[in-house]
Amino acid sequence: MQSNPEIRIGVDIMGSDSSPELLLHAASDLSASLPANVKLIAIGHPRFEHLSKLPLKAASETIEMQDAPLIAIRRKKDSSLCVGLRMLREKEIDAFVSAGNTGALVSYAKVTLAMLPGLMRPALLAILPTKRNPLVVLDVGANLQCKATHLVQFALVGAAYQLARGVKMPSVGLLNIGSEALKGTSELRTAYQELQRLSKEPEAFFRFAGNIEGKIVFDGNVDVLVTDGFTGNVFLKTAEGLANLILDRINENLSGDMAQNMQDHLQDLHSHLHYAEYPGALLAGVKGVVIKCHGYSSPEAFSSGIREAIRVVGEGFLQILQNKLFNRKA
Amino acid sequence: MQSNPEIRIGVDIMGSDSSPELLLHAASDLSASLPANVKLIAIGHPRFEHLSKLPLKAASETIEMQDAPLIAIRRKKDSSLCVGLRMLREKEIDAFVSAGNTGALVSYAKVTLAMLPGLMRPALLAILPTKRNPLVVLDVGANLQCKATHLVQFALVGAAYQLARGVKMPSVGLLNIGSEALKGTSELRTAYQELQRLSKEPEAFFRFAGNIEGKIVFDGNVDVLVTDGFTGNVFLKTAEGLANLILDRINENLSGDMAQNMQDHLQDLHSHLHYAEYPGALLAGVKGVVIKCHGYSSPEAFSSGIREAIRVVGEGFLQILQNKLFNRKA
Repeated sequence: MQSNPEIRIGVDIMGSDSSPELLLHAASDLSASLPANVKLIAIGHPRFEHLSKLPLKAASETIEMQDAPLIAIRRKKDSSLCVGLRMLREKEIDAFVSAGNTGALVSYAKVTLAMLPGLMRPALLAILPTKRNPLVVLDVGANLQCKATHLVQFALVGAAYQLARGVKMPSVGLLNIGSEALKGTSELRTAYQELQRLSKEPEAFFRFAGNIEGKIVFDGNVDVLVTDGFTGNVFLKTAEGLANLILDRINENLSGDMAQNMQDHLQDLHSHLHYAEYPGALLAGVKGVVIKCHGYSSPEAFSSGIREAIRVVGEGFLQILQNKLFNRKA
Repeated sequence: MQSNPEIRIGVDIMGSDSSPELLLHAASDLSASLPANVKLIAIGHPRFEHLSKLPLKAASETIEMQDAPLIAIRRKKDSSLCVGLRMLREKEIDAFVSAGNTGALVSYAKVTLAMLPGLMRPALLAILPTKRNPLVVLDVGANLQCKATHLVQFALVGAAYQLARGVKMPSVGLLNIGSEALKGTSELRTAYQELQRLSKEPEAFFRFAGNIEGKIVFDGNVDVLVTDGFTGNVFLKTAEGLANLILDRINENLSGDMAQNMQDHLQDLHSHLHYAEYPGALLAGVKGVVIKCHGYSSPEAFSSGIREAIRVVGEGFLQILQNKLFNRKA
């Protein structure tokens, strides 16, 4: 019997809105239930070493939430965030999970890990529930403004992610304000044409579903939804806010067991919509698996981010994406 | 006893995805229940005259949904949409309600009615339910890309709208991806500074609540949410799509009376989120009251759009907005 290859996950316990103790505890608890081939390595200040049941890689500094990202990554090279990403580059770990400063994580990942050939910018990729299959949305916050080229590259990344999850010929849509080809900004119109062209190439690995409006996104007719980081972030947070409003209304209108029952059922939906909380967003496009958990991750959400990292490594997302990009260039 | 002044509403029965007969019928039915001072005037093809219980202003042409807006308004000057907007300009009616081509309506309103002094672009303004008070959102689709100046003007328009509804010192927020002043695009950052400055002037008629994320919008802590037409449109349609998803889940999980009860309760929320359907969006900033109903308005939604027009005229929104703009310039 072939044994599974070892999977090593670096876990940043610093710099989030949760305490390092809480995140360390969550990771330790999770560790006990993981298969033997998965190793977690905590990364954080040495003062937490005596608390840790996991091996701890010492990092003397911490990038805080309110730190300016570009300054922080220059000045705090021994922060857990920077140390973790360098460990990933040096292949000391197979994935890195952090609930720290998003801007710093994106920027330092880009310079330290570098982009995969054929890609220009990393994107934050989230998975959402729909009426049918889970939907991949990117970018949900790494790039405020995007050119058509970036959007097209996000489409390739998202499609490769769904391929890795086992979806054959994933369908890709562009988030837009109408379904017609001429809707939206000029960048969206250019991206539309280019995606249509690419989807007809012999080596195409996705179908192009055209423009998709927010109101039909949750019907689950596409596997990948492409958008710029500003719109994608508004999209996700709006979904979260509305889920909240509806849960509230249900609370007002149902009582006792029935309310609890319905709440439990919809809570799952709500948690999933709380994007970077559960199961975290993948920073996609860089040479390495990086999962960004929400700044105020609960222990469950943080564990869920670690599980996501294990899954993405196990499914071979990076290799699949790299192969697809290489085929396109060849 | 002072009698109420007459309110005349022009109702476009052509060019929507619903049939003219259906819209005519909806308007006639509504008319019977309106106060004596409100008169509805149907605007449409003379072939519908024999069906109409309302006075019908003849318009021989129809701008179709798929017509290119700028070409349509040049070539179809005798369309119901163009005739109605000219009637509004000539003060033959006090408001115009249409479920026709949005682009044509916005463009022709802008050239025919002209903008109020101090405003550069019309915005589509929608009202949404929240956990507390109704929220005004603009722009929800008239302008894909906006400069800081446009956003600031939308804030004034939205605040005047809430003033007209009786809200004292409405609070205004900018839809953004984080609450800090430096979040978002450069246009948003400039708009932030300018709104902060304006809200501190002695003649200020709104409070500035800063940047608002989609996830807290529905908490109802602001009265006006300002955004560009692309983001605003995605915002609304996402809310609609998610409401749909949740209604669906509830259907699966509740049975019989309980499901019906909950559905009825949340249907109201859902209808409200179906923005231009119920109660329609106000095309704000032009010299006249124009309500845009959804292209596939149900009779109820169309009637609701007409009622909204009556309310906006009755509350004196245009005069209030004009006064506020005049005070700023003086």
